[in-house]
Amino acid sequence: MVEQIQANLVSIDQLTADDALDFIHEAQAFKAGKQVHLLKPAYAMNLFFEDSTRTKTSFQMAEMKLGMQVLNFNAATSSVNKGESLYDTLRTIEEIGVNIAVIRHSQNNYYQGLVEAPNLKIGIANAGDGSGQHPSQCLLDMMTIYEQFEHFKGLKVLINGDIRHSRVARSNAEMLSRLGAEVYFSGPEEWFDPQLERYGKFGSFTELLPKMDVINILRVQHERLSGSSNSQFDEQAYRKQFGITSNRIKVLKPDAIILHPAPVNRGVEIDDELVESPHSRIFTQMKNGVFVRMAILSSLLRYQKLL
Amino acid sequence: MVEQIQANLVSIDQLTADDALDFIHEAQAFKAGKQVHLLKPAYAMNLFFEDSTRTKTSFQMAEMKLGMQVLNFNAATSSVNKGESLYDTLRTIEEIGVNIAVIRHSQNNYYQGLVEAPNLKIGIANAGDGSGQHPSQCLLDMMTIYEQFEHFKGLKVLINGDIRHSRVARSNAEMLSRLGAEVYFSGPEEWFDPQLERYGKFGSFTELLPKMDVINILRVQHERLSGSSNSQFDEQAYRKQFGITSNRIKVLKPDAIILHPAPVNRGVEIDDELVESPHSRIFTQMKNGVFVRMAILSSLLRYQKLL
Amino acid sequence: MVEQIQANLVSIDQLTADDALDFIHEAQAFKAGKQVHLLKPAYAMNLFFEDSTRTKTSFQMAEMKLGMQVLNFNAATSSVNKGESLYDTLRTIEEIGVNIAVIRHSQNNYYQGLVEAPNLKIGIANAGDGSGQHPSQCLLDMMTIYEQFEHFKGLKVLINGDIRHSRVARSNAEMLSRLGAEVYFSGPEEWFDPQLERYGKFGSFTELLPKMDVINILRVQHERLSGSSNSQFDEQAYRKQFGITSNRIKVLKPDAIILHPAPVNRGVEIDDELVESPHSRIFTQMKNGVFVRMAILSSLLRYQKLL
Repeated sequence: MVEQIQANLVSIDQLTADDALDFIHEAQAFKAGKQVHLLKPAYAMNLFFEDSTRTKTSFQMAEMKLGMQVLNFNAATSSVNKGESLYDTLRTIEEIGVNIAVIRHSQNNYYQGLVEAPNLKIGIANAGDGSGQHPSQCLLDMMTIYEQFEHFKGLKVLINGDIRHSRVARSNAEMLSRLGAEVYFSGPEEWFDPQLERYGKFGSFTELLPKMDVINILRVQHERLSGSSNSQFDEQAYRKQFGITSNRIKVLKPDAIILHPAPVNRGVEIDDELVESPHSRIFTQMKNGVFVRMAILSSLLRYQKLL
Repeated sequence: MVEQIQANLVSIDQLTADDALDFIHEAQAFKAGKQVHLLKPAYAMNLFFEDSTRTKTSFQMAEMKLGMQVLNFNAATSSVNKGESLYDTLRTIEEIGVNIAVIRHSQNNYYQGLVEAPNLKIGIANAGDGSGQHPSQCLLDMMTIYEQFEHFKGLKVLINGDIRHSRVARSNAEMLSRLGAEVYFSGPEEWFDPQLERYGKFGSFTELLPKMDVINILRVQHERLSGSSNSQFDEQAYRKQFGITSNRIKVLKPDAIILHPAPVNRGVEIDDELVESPHSRIFTQMKNGVFVRMAILSSLLRYQKLL
Repeated sequence: MVEQIQANLVSIDQLTADDALDFIHEAQAFKAGKQVHLLKPAYAMNLFFEDSTRTKTSFQMAEMKLGMQVLNFNAATSSVNKGESLYDTLRTIEEIGVNIAVIRHSQNNYYQGLVEAPNLKIGIANAGDGSGQHPSQCLLDMMTIYEQFEHFKGLKVLINGDIRHSRVARSNAEMLSRLGAEVYFSGPEEWFDPQLERYGKFGSFTELLPKMDVINILRVQHERLSGSSNSQFDEQAYRKQFGITSNRIKVLKPDAIILHPAPVNRGVEIDDELVESPHSRIFTQMKNGVFVRMAILSSLLRYQKLL
């Protein structure tokens, strides 16, 4: 295993296929019980400007398991309310002694100016920016696929659903292509993004399903749909056309797996009783998320000579 | 001392009188300085969907004193806002590695489906559900009584006040009966709940007061009274009829004690200057709360072989 | 170094010049790497009833670096919403086992009744009360000046800007006088407070600037200005008359330093590109803040025989 050293991890565009495999291998080592010891006390702060349970808790757990100290940040009561910029907030907590900032923000590419700022030395782990990147989610999806198949070459992966609004779709398509998998897309046509055609073809959900090794279903993001399209959205029609139902799951290859970034809309993207069924890796993804984040944080800690 | 082992503690209905005494004895041991050592790192998360200072802080302190790591959860910014169910939230944090969830929720019996779910192995400590259960409060009240009298048999305990809206009234009445105490009720008649008659008689506050060993006054819960009854509520009239005043406290037996679940409405349920007077155990209850919660968490940790 | 022992630190009025120097020296020792070891586990709680990033994070870091355990408090979801008084909240967390409460509150002198309450033994560190005191800010400003000049006698210090609404102005003026510095004031005349004349003269910003050793610019507190004066406030006019601009910075003495309590309104009180320029100590202040707070907390811990 080559141990990754990165100043920041904000986008999967930073990572070659080999880099991604390195992260996966280190995450697997953590899952198998690997322990690390910090060279000095190290401090993390999780700055979530958007709602989250899973990602925030997962990063917090990863920090604790690495022995880091975790400082609280409450976006709602921070000086951001006094108009402070993200740069000044980060510069401030860096001076205070925080080594790594984990950030989720509604603005795409919020990190652009930050990773280039000469005076900002705090490590940044991007935990999701608008409809942009979510590299830890991408890596945990890759890890979960790799755990099942032990390779990527030639794997057929279908990404199904709300592709246009999804941070997951583009990142996973990009990384899967880089790792040698074949990517396919399906879902409502109006939600397809033609820019993704370079990664794979858009096809019929029911026709593609029986040939796939991985079915990566996406969340219908009610909170991102605009008011009117949200109220018009017909959950039952969506389930009928694009949901994983008891009938559809029967056509899957025996070792095919289902991924979902969660939280799941049970009975929409996938039927309630299938969320924890044998093909599903939805909760495995959450478990793997902690170990992938330990690998990411380790990389940033090594850059700062704290590990 | 028999060391309790419970998968969850959600209701005092799970506990025999002996179980309750076991918890009290272990809490007393913690109060006397007993130390424990976790077999593995253990992680707690406090999920409070209703306001709380006392109970939340008390659980957090108990977790820290046991050497657990405490993860933050902010209900207001969690994925519950994306419509995630409590089951999925718990299933998620369990996969992430949380061992024990301490939950307060406005919905009565929120825990019903959860403790029976076959795939949910996280330990649940109920920190209050609607007008239902609040087992750690009940046990800390019992501990505070036991510290004073060293037994329960034949003790006369009066529960006075807003009985109908109180989580405390029913639980304490039930447990006190089980432990052999005699229970009495008083307060505004419209706030009495006839279902409680099986535990004890409803009587006149002033007539009962001089005969009691324990007076468990209840909080007037302005936040649970409906708009109109709240604005009509006459605090001075309540104090005059059902409050502990300087005159009334004189009629108490010399070793009688006063309990209150807090926060206290000073000058309503009890006069300001009496809150910290010799008969009062109101702040002792808060101190004991930490030790009772250490005993509860220990029980759940033992079930998971973490202690 | 005389090690300070204080039950509480709520106001700089408690501190002689020598006391302040003791705190500065201990903070410098912490900055140089001094380690301390708690005699027993010690618990801190940060109760911030007003927005803050800097001060809250800084105290939290100081607590962690001293080895204290930090309990979370969320004012928005606390029992304060049930009408609980600050006294009862503190009395409660003290019983629960919290040793030190760090408090920011919008009410001036909120601490008055608390530090005198005979039954309240919890240590209180004031982290800002309304337009009143902010002793840790004052001490970190003094430390930053002392780092530069190694003395205070005869230093010329200008306090410029929104003096009337500032916690910083009065405290710094008072402490600087006590330490032997010469204090001057400038800024919009309507924002001057005649009560401050006992500390120093009000003069012209541009005339005073070239003679000063320290320029302590203040934040324009949009959030404290009333609605109408806020909307009428002309940032560009302010910058032109009272801001540190590229032209004005040239007139400074070579070793003069600029302080600002932050968050900075870039381009109003000081030009964007000057915030991190050689004269500026704005981020140094934030770094020093942690060490000053370690010294303050150490003082309170020693009083409680925890250090």
